[in-house]
Amino acid sequence: MSKYQVDLNADLGEGAGYDDELIPMLTSANIACGFHAGNPHMMREAVKHCVEHEVHIGAHPSFPDPWGFGRREMQCTCDEVIDYMLYQIGSLAAFCQAEGVKLYHVKPHGSIYNMAWRDMDLAKAIVEGIKRFDKNLILFAQPNSYLAKAGVEAGLKVVYEVFADRAYNNDGSLTSRKEKNSVLHDPEKVLERTIKMVLEGKVITYENEELELKAGTICLHGDNPAAIMLAQSIRQGLIENDVEIVAP
Amino acid sequence: MSKYQVDLNADLGEGAGYDDELIPMLTSANIACGFHAGNPHMMREAVKHCVEHEVHIGAHPSFPDPWGFGRREMQCTCDEVIDYMLYQIGSLAAFCQAEGVKLYHVKPHGSIYNMAWRDMDLAKAIVEGIKRFDKNLILFAQPNSYLAKAGVEAGLKVVYEVFADRAYNNDGSLTSRKEKNSVLHDPEKVLERTIKMVLEGKVITYENEELELKAGTICLHGDNPAAIMLAQSIRQGLIENDVEIVAP
Amino acid sequence: MSKYQVDLNADLGEGAGYDDELIPMLTSANIACGFHAGNPHMMREAVKHCVEHEVHIGAHPSFPDPWGFGRREMQCTCDEVIDYMLYQIGSLAAFCQAEGVKLYHVKPHGSIYNMAWRDMDLAKAIVEGIKRFDKNLILFAQPNSYLAKAGVEAGLKVVYEVFADRAYNNDGSLTSRKEKNSVLHDPEKVLERTIKMVLEGKVITYENEELELKAGTICLHGDNPAAIMLAQSIRQGLIENDVEIVAP
Amino acid sequence: MSKYQVDLNADLGEGAGYDDELIPMLTSANIACGFHAGNPHMMREAVKHCVEHEVHIGAHPSFPDPWGFGRREMQCTCDEVIDYMLYQIGSLAAFCQAEGVKLYHVKPHGSIYNMAWRDMDLAKAIVEGIKRFDKNLILFAQPNSYLAKAGVEAGLKVVYEVFADRAYNNDGSLTSRKEKNSVLHDPEKVLERTIKMVLEGKVITYENEELELKAGTICLHGDNPAAIMLAQSIRQGLIENDVEIVAP
Repeated sequence: MSKYQVDLNADLGEGAGYDDELIPMLTSANIACGFHAGNPHMMREAVKHCVEHEVHIGAHPSFPDPWGFGRREMQCTCDEVIDYMLYQIGSLAAFCQAEGVKLYHVKPHGSIYNMAWRDMDLAKAIVEGIKRFDKNLILFAQPNSYLAKAGVEAGLKVVYEVFADRAYNNDGSLTSRKEKNSVLHDPEKVLERTIKMVLEGKVITYENEELELKAGTICLHGDNPAAIMLAQSIRQGLIENDVEIVAP
Repeated sequence: MSKYQVDLNADLGEGAGYDDELIPMLTSANIACGFHAGNPHMMREAVKHCVEHEVHIGAHPSFPDPWGFGRREMQCTCDEVIDYMLYQIGSLAAFCQAEGVKLYHVKPHGSIYNMAWRDMDLAKAIVEGIKRFDKNLILFAQPNSYLAKAGVEAGLKVVYEVFADRAYNNDGSLTSRKEKNSVLHDPEKVLERTIKMVLEGKVITYENEELELKAGTICLHGDNPAAIMLAQSIRQGLIENDVEIVAP
Repeated sequence: MSKYQVDLNADLGEGAGYDDELIPMLTSANIACGFHAGNPHMMREAVKHCVEHEVHIGAHPSFPDPWGFGRREMQCTCDEVIDYMLYQIGSLAAFCQAEGVKLYHVKPHGSIYNMAWRDMDLAKAIVEGIKRFDKNLILFAQPNSYLAKAGVEAGLKVVYEVFADRAYNNDGSLTSRKEKNSVLHDPEKVLERTIKMVLEGKVITYENEELELKAGTICLHGDNPAAIMLAQSIRQGLIENDVEIVAP
Repeated sequence: MSKYQVDLNADLGEGAGYDDELIPMLTSANIACGFHAGNPHMMREAVKHCVEHEVHIGAHPSFPDPWGFGRREMQCTCDEVIDYMLYQIGSLAAFCQAEGVKLYHVKPHGSIYNMAWRDMDLAKAIVEGIKRFDKNLILFAQPNSYLAKAGVEAGLKVVYEVFADRAYNNDGSLTSRKEKNSVLHDPEKVLERTIKMVLEGKVITYENEELELKAGTICLHGDNPAAIMLAQSIRQGLIENDVEIVAP
């Protein structure tokens, strides 16, 4: 067992067409539940695919916004958010149950995930939905987020998710994609950051300061061929640096 | 404990507006899961409502056809049907789990239920979906149907559902609504038939023959005020005939 | 022809179950286009119903949010809003075309309507969508709203919509439903306000000041029996005060 | 002007990811309207794309079955089918209107198209929906189909659509994909068939007989790279055989 361990996760079952390439690299997969992408057939396929490759399955719940891919802010009540968590987690758990595997984690998708970085009421509602379904589910949340805080306070196991190719602000939030250089494309720099996050638990921010940032799981993207190559390079680099890639 | 027992079920969470009147009469409720009617919010409300009144909750899965209220025939593969069963049962089970109650049964809705009367492949797919989720779930199915047969063969507990106000053909199928007098409106006649089904296990068919028809659960309708009154009259009549109304 | 004229409008095709009672009272109807309520079948029914009663038909477009009945705020881009206007107006216009009648107006529904009271970018996007479809369509908008302003600036004919039973703030916005007494229930007071709005173009605000408020069309509600009675009382009162009820 | 002319059409706005490659080859495009694929945003994109390349735009309406991609048989009433035609054609026409271009044609998608080959009631309902919207719209239909017959009888301009890479039965129906060699993959053979259909109006059937088959428009597929190459080869071959490629 290595001194350093990290989980590699990616979003599956969204119809992007690169699931086959991504899956062998992963230890955890977040499967869309039909609200931003996916449908019962794609969920079955994605679950089976994960089972074959022994990838841990998590739910990837979203606001109900298929036309906006779950990326638009919606003002929902806490009760509505709890309903959406239950409905989506329950539907995916059924496919896991049918295949005889466990549902391990929940990683909210898109704007519900981003809004819960800064909105404690929303964060608590998300956590409440997860907990009412199963208090043993793991929550993936960004370090420094209200979502992580709400999860910890509620007694959930929280795994901190970091993004290898995104710039961070000093407060630990992601630098907006609208800002110049907020997304990194140079595979070497991306790998260097990733290694630093995993080995030192630190990142150099967009404003050039050093920030503590625990990395429990790294999000790999797979919506285009370049992303697949970047993911491979990250995975390879971690292994070469003696980091064990393992589900939480 | 009475010599005779029967369950009273109705479809809830479909937005018909009479759930409040129906629930106190029921021992079992079939809750829509969003495919023909309902949504996560209505599912939460219906589940809570049932919990308050100690009504046993079942899933009421359908073809994905909200505009046709699940009443139109669709040609789906067996895999697709299994997917629809899992997705819907799983999502409703999550709301039950959140309220700390059990999901007791499954009663397919509309055309998937009607088609499974005569289509063994479809019946087997429905049963397979239920069984993969939880082999202890009870299946509501019409006596004489392939759905009941498939359920029994697969080892599910099957409860036979009869309709108090619908005419039956000699083969045990429901007489088409297009036929004259296929739906009974006279409360006395409806009650008389119901008592005969529950006490003797028999019904006089549309073609005027006596048919054996086991009655484990009676479907009450509640989509209009007349239906509510009919339901009350059936319930009252059963009690007066010393039939115990109890969930299966 | 009376010195005073006003249009009476209501939202139809939303499945509330009181369309039959409402239609004979109306001169304009806003028909749901499937985004917050309604579907192609309900649209056909509502359009035919309006044609029979010679009620002018308008589109009632919404954010795509059926589970929230279009009442939740969503952050959409201007292009997305234009797309939603075109899609919904176009689909309803087709049913009008099929019945040989004209589509007269557009009244946005729920939160897109409320947000456009205060958000000029959204207001402009709504107006742009309408105009690209047909610059002769009439826009229903609240007086004092950015939506009305955007419509006027773009050269659309704008008809000012007022609510008979809702309290107004000093800036002309509706007092939040969360505030005490923000919704009026006393038929006499509701009628008195309405007459004042139509005859004098003024309303006494929640903060008890007199505000200029042009009334071109009055919104009648019909989602419950009390609303139907209130609508009848308003209609009757207007006629008795020699106000001509006529479409714009 | 050549002695021989044919239109080249393809389905766009379905999210397959090859629209960019296909569009420059086409004279007509069938755009999905949200029932089997697509949404308002994709419709806007596809319409703009067609306008840029001066491709004639048609609607590609389907049964409401996004999870089955409109390929599953559904039993709808004639009124329901008319509603679906109106809703979809109207919504797409709005995007055309916004761009200042005409909607030229309608080509039904998937199972509604296939069922209308053999079902005259369904065929008439499709035609009725088109005609009620605009009797000048062109109908794309397979030669020998009831859909074509219904269109001609109703006075619509019908353009006969043929498939370059599909085997035909003696009655002019497509040989089921389940049969061996029902889909041709050899580019030379596909081209040879196509030229024969366009120049001679004939095809050699699956059962090896010569069948008269008028070819007004050829359907190109674009859901994978091989399909794109086949489409290019067909287009090139037609030009080399002095066939003018032109919208109807």
